[in-house]
Amino acid sequence: MEINNRTVRLNKRPLGLPEKNTWSFNEENFDLKLKENQFIIKNDFISLDPAMRGWLNDARSYIKPVQVGEVMRAGSVGKVIKSNNKYFNEGDYVSGWGGVQDYTITNGENFQKIKDDKIAKESYLGVLGMPGFTAYFGILREGQIKEGETVVVSAAAGAVGSVVGQIAKIKGCKVIGIAGGEEKCKYVTENLKFDYCLDYKSENFFVELKDKCKDGVDVYFDNVGGSLLNHMLIFISRGARIVVCGAISQYNSQKVVGPSNYLSLLVNRASMKGMVVFDYAKDYGLAQNEMRDWILEGKLKTNEDVYDGIENFHEIFLKLFNGEKKGKLILKL
Amino acid sequence: MEINNRTVRLNKRPLGLPEKNTWSFNEENFDLKLKENQFIIKNDFISLDPAMRGWLNDARSYIKPVQVGEVMRAGSVGKVIKSNNKYFNEGDYVSGWGGVQDYTITNGENFQKIKDDKIAKESYLGVLGMPGFTAYFGILREGQIKEGETVVVSAAAGAVGSVVGQIAKIKGCKVIGIAGGEEKCKYVTENLKFDYCLDYKSENFFVELKDKCKDGVDVYFDNVGGSLLNHMLIFISRGARIVVCGAISQYNSQKVVGPSNYLSLLVNRASMKGMVVFDYAKDYGLAQNEMRDWILEGKLKTNEDVYDGIENFHEIFLKLFNGEKKGKLILKL
Repeated sequence: MEINNRTVRLNKRPLGLPEKNTWSFNEENFDLKLKENQFIIKNDFISLDPAMRGWLNDARSYIKPVQVGEVMRAGSVGKVIKSNNKYFNEGDYVSGWGGVQDYTITNGENFQKIKDDKIAKESYLGVLGMPGFTAYFGILREGQIKEGETVVVSAAAGAVGSVVGQIAKIKGCKVIGIAGGEEKCKYVTENLKFDYCLDYKSENFFVELKDKCKDGVDVYFDNVGGSLLNHMLIFISRGARIVVCGAISQYNSQKVVGPSNYLSLLVNRASMKGMVVFDYAKDYGLAQNEMRDWILEGKLKTNEDVYDGIENFHEIFLKLFNGEKKGKLILKL
Repeated sequence: MEINNRTVRLNKRPLGLPEKNTWSFNEENFDLKLKENQFIIKNDFISLDPAMRGWLNDARSYIKPVQVGEVMRAGSVGKVIKSNNKYFNEGDYVSGWGGVQDYTITNGENFQKIKDDKIAKESYLGVLGMPGFTAYFGILREGQIKEGETVVVSAAAGAVGSVVGQIAKIKGCKVIGIAGGEEKCKYVTENLKFDYCLDYKSENFFVELKDKCKDGVDVYFDNVGGSLLNHMLIFISRGARIVVCGAISQYNSQKVVGPSNYLSLLVNRASMKGMVVFDYAKDYGLAQNEMRDWILEGKLKTNEDVYDGIENFHEIFLKLFNGEKKGKLILKL
């Protein structure tokens, strides 16, 4: 039996924003004969994340770059349709690194079963997947928030930021989100229940930021970098922690802007520390269980923003960078 | 009885490097009548430190700015010549915040007695004073060095850097110093016994830096900021600690350069943390005892560079910034 597998492969490394010819769109027939321990997954949902932009650069980083010609690396959720593996059986739902393609053959390394009929499967790419883990370990282990502290989160309507702020609220912090546009800010305060959300596109943004942060910020969870990080350095309080989780404003830039206010770290005995979620892999299960409970108790909202069609991958991927999505961006196959 | 007290007061806040008219040079007679608990010190040595430049700016910082008209704040060592205080007696040597003046009247707050006939009194402004404490707590508590790690120290011939590197050697680290000029580099490797010292004025500097740091730097102790900090971010290893102790290249600058390579913190899960020595005040005695032992055992070299005459204060102070001194800069009265 042959299967027609649509794949998206890296065609050419981009400078700046990916263009259509960054990718090649292919139809590849392959035989369904499986080796020992292998199984085949029909992918239902593909995770689209800002970090994927970094994997396109041929540079030393926390993970090997995607090579030209390879299927684009991506998280996925799908259903096992045929199996030679005794742990993963036909009909099982699994999450893992399926890549941007209809079907994935694997021996199961880095795949987990999803046994859950109370929560939508795609949430295992969002709150109960990498973005959720990033938020959980970033704000709790790196940020070390304490009740009553003031937390500022950038990209507050995003896949990670939206969870960071909700966890900080659960832990009794005052939470100020920053997002782009009135609609997102409304989502952040009304749906996610942050105390405030400031629109960085508003002309009063810096005045409002100063007003809301004037008593000092204990944790700044940075997803964006650039001039906002630099501004936040002005407002940090003594002993503050800046969690460097990402820098989406800089990923497509060929010249990164450095935070010239960094001496505020000295004055305030504050720290700025980078994190990579993979370091917490052994505790993913713990985070998943706790966050699943919070979801079922209504304390934590899931946040998937799902778009259809592998043929639209390029345009949907760009929504990560043009502000056209809320929460966790997902491609449905 | 009247005393003629020569003082240096802040006359005008400088922009950039202090100029002669930043200061006023005065002769002030005062009466020797002391209130209860007061005593008078004849200052022998005045400490000149890069941090003093920061105190001239009217900006929120870790300490109140020196006000226009005030005697310039400075550490000092001197001898009690008259006392109404039962703890401090005539003939005692003391260190504390005497300011840039011949005589200081105080009730003893923030002054300590020096009882030591084995070590030169002026070392209590250097290795056994603030710069030594900064080095000690900076490299041990903030840097958390471990045997076998690679440590890079900028301003390696300076008051703090020279002690940082020596302590790192005592603790079994590989130590690379960075200093300006061949003579200083020779002092750092031959006298202070660092493994290497690189001359940032040499045209091969960045090539040599890359060569020496290519296996990764675990702790970078930053006294200078600017482009060197940015370069060091390229060489940090996983889990590295950058101790932000100062930024002498930036203190006289009206536009600080931000480290555009800061995303290396993310890739390497590294931290950049500011420190202020005052936070360790309760443990100064502990540091002083341990470093005094090291000095007497010949493991730690003192480093005072002493110049004469309060009338030369302005020119001597500039030696902090023009590279014309080695070790701890001290004004002798």
